[in-house]
Amino acid sequence: MPLVIGIAAETTPGERRLSVVPDVVKKYLALGAEVVMQKGAGVPAHFRDEAFESVTWVDEDVDVCAAADILLGVQPPSLKRIGKLKPGAVVLGFLQPWFDAKRAERMMEKNITSFALELLPRISRSQSMDGLSSQAAVAGYECALIAADHSPKFFPMLTYAAGTIRPAKVLVIGAGVAGLQAIATARRIGAMVEAYDVRPETREQIESLGAKFVDTGVSAAGLGGYARELTDEEKAKQAEKLAKAVSQCDALITTAAIPGRKAPVIITAAMVAGMKAGAVVVDMAAESGGNVEGTVAGEKTWINDVLVVGPTHITSRMPVHASEMYAKNLFNFISPFIKDGVLTMDWEDEVMAGCCLTHDGQLRHAGVKQILGL
Amino acid sequence: MPLVIGIAAETTPGERRLSVVPDVVKKYLALGAEVVMQKGAGVPAHFRDEAFESVTWVDEDVDVCAAADILLGVQPPSLKRIGKLKPGAVVLGFLQPWFDAKRAERMMEKNITSFALELLPRISRSQSMDGLSSQAAVAGYECALIAADHSPKFFPMLTYAAGTIRPAKVLVIGAGVAGLQAIATARRIGAMVEAYDVRPETREQIESLGAKFVDTGVSAAGLGGYARELTDEEKAKQAEKLAKAVSQCDALITTAAIPGRKAPVIITAAMVAGMKAGAVVVDMAAESGGNVEGTVAGEKTWINDVLVVGPTHITSRMPVHASEMYAKNLFNFISPFIKDGVLTMDWEDEVMAGCCLTHDGQLRHAGVKQILGL
Repeated sequence: MPLVIGIAAETTPGERRLSVVPDVVKKYLALGAEVVMQKGAGVPAHFRDEAFESVTWVDEDVDVCAAADILLGVQPPSLKRIGKLKPGAVVLGFLQPWFDAKRAERMMEKNITSFALELLPRISRSQSMDGLSSQAAVAGYECALIAADHSPKFFPMLTYAAGTIRPAKVLVIGAGVAGLQAIATARRIGAMVEAYDVRPETREQIESLGAKFVDTGVSAAGLGGYARELTDEEKAKQAEKLAKAVSQCDALITTAAIPGRKAPVIITAAMVAGMKAGAVVVDMAAESGGNVEGTVAGEKTWINDVLVVGPTHITSRMPVHASEMYAKNLFNFISPFIKDGVLTMDWEDEVMAGCCLTHDGQLRHAGVKQILGL
Repeated sequence: MPLVIGIAAETTPGERRLSVVPDVVKKYLALGAEVVMQKGAGVPAHFRDEAFESVTWVDEDVDVCAAADILLGVQPPSLKRIGKLKPGAVVLGFLQPWFDAKRAERMMEKNITSFALELLPRISRSQSMDGLSSQAAVAGYECALIAADHSPKFFPMLTYAAGTIRPAKVLVIGAGVAGLQAIATARRIGAMVEAYDVRPETREQIESLGAKFVDTGVSAAGLGGYARELTDEEKAKQAEKLAKAVSQCDALITTAAIPGRKAPVIITAAMVAGMKAGAVVVDMAAESGGNVEGTVAGEKTWINDVLVVGPTHITSRMPVHASEMYAKNLFNFISPFIKDGVLTMDWEDEVMAGCCLTHDGQLRHAGVKQILGL
């Protein structure tokens, strides 16, 4: 029996991505695996069933689960799906490991080996597997488009018969992968861009994209490439300098998220109140609480004459390419361990071991174990 | 008594533009005119009342009408507003002259001198007054953003750790001002762009923006810079060549409008059915009937797995700059005839005479007169 890779339809409302794309399915087949998919699973991501070749189709998600040696997913599997898995099966995808003790327990009970892509060690070799980064690139691009589309002004300079329109000013908060992509996209459309990050070492990257670095004199360089949380005093100093930049921009895009944590509030109600009439705010962190006071996740909110957009499921606005990138990330993670249709795990491998959430009835990730109290 | 320029709030649902902006109000004042505005008129366009200096504010639109020597507007004045105007007053703006005999009659009865910007002779000198063109530029830019924002793919090429995303293919139909702006914007975002126009002389302009011209072998060069209507045979030939380009694109933007006429249907249901899964269509002509079979004005319609967007009030998505451009167009039209607070009309002036819809109780535009049967 060859190794079975299973893909069931995503069921989380608003989720349109898929954990494979036709080209990646071919690659799994080339490794000697069989691919079992639920009919129509690719449709929300615009992949018709006939786009996938040599796949075994089943009607129900539970049929996928029952057959799978490795279950791929974008969103974590439901308890029901976990219950249908074969003991010892592998689950791979975003598993939101910090948020659901019940899911972890159920996977331990069923002796599931689960790999949470969120736990990926951020080393050079793992970049091609980094789903958080690839999806952040999608989100940053989308947020710049949302800002441009909702702005009552042109982003680019425009010369026309009766005069010249000056380019819009865009301010991007957070210069991680998402922020940098937002900067690049806003620049491409033609805006003047300023950007801010608590990590002063981002200045060079920001400037390399043709944007200006907003210097607040506060540094929050943290571990693992993420920002640490600021003290109250630092926050006040940051806020004062930021407020000025915020008051001058036509569009504000905030991208400050800390995985597994509530997003920090960086833009206060007072800052929003000080913005220009017709300014647009796109709060990329809306789903995890928002970087902007007054953001409502999934809504467009007028605060006086400033429009605050709190998009949710941002990557699902672009499911074809978001799925393609994510599918490759998963494939790059697991494929080195598949040979001639057989999966052989290597617990000496820093990346495999680092991503492991549950194995052999145990919760293997110390940080998650502590947070979940298991 | 100085000349009074009057601006009442726009009342058409969905209309957010205004016929003046603060800088243009200053220019009218500098010509010795007085400016009377209805309170809050600028708010939908994000101009707060306090942004306008030295303006006389009134509460009601009828108070503006009663005071105005020249009433400016974006949408044509209602019969009620016309009824409140002083006999002999001037009305200037988009007046949709072909569509409403009653409005024209009422203006004749009231001895209103009306100038419809749609009737502007398209000569070199009038370019700075060309409201159709300035608003088309806004619409073309917006439609490219709508297409990018709704596409399930990246427009630009993107190289990331796990591979490279190829740029999206965008097809733009119609290379007037709107089409050219859509091409430029889609190119700026990073897409590969093809474009088609029935007028082969547009090839050079299309290519100068870095896009490829789709050559169907059909020419419909017409008078006044607009396309003439095609014969059935020409349409069939055009359709066949176009269908191929349509089937290959990721996003399709149609911009073929003929002022005062129903928009031509260029993209048939069969062509839409032949499009890629996940393709996006933005039909800029939705409000005047649509270039695409199946477009619903004001709606987003899934036709199989192709999304057809039929935006309405497109320029009102960008009211700050759309208003700025339009306000300058109106000012450039009327200001040469204002001196020391006095308006002196010059019927020898080709532009003024050409734009005149009604004057001295007469309907002065032969073409409109024929269409309205007056």
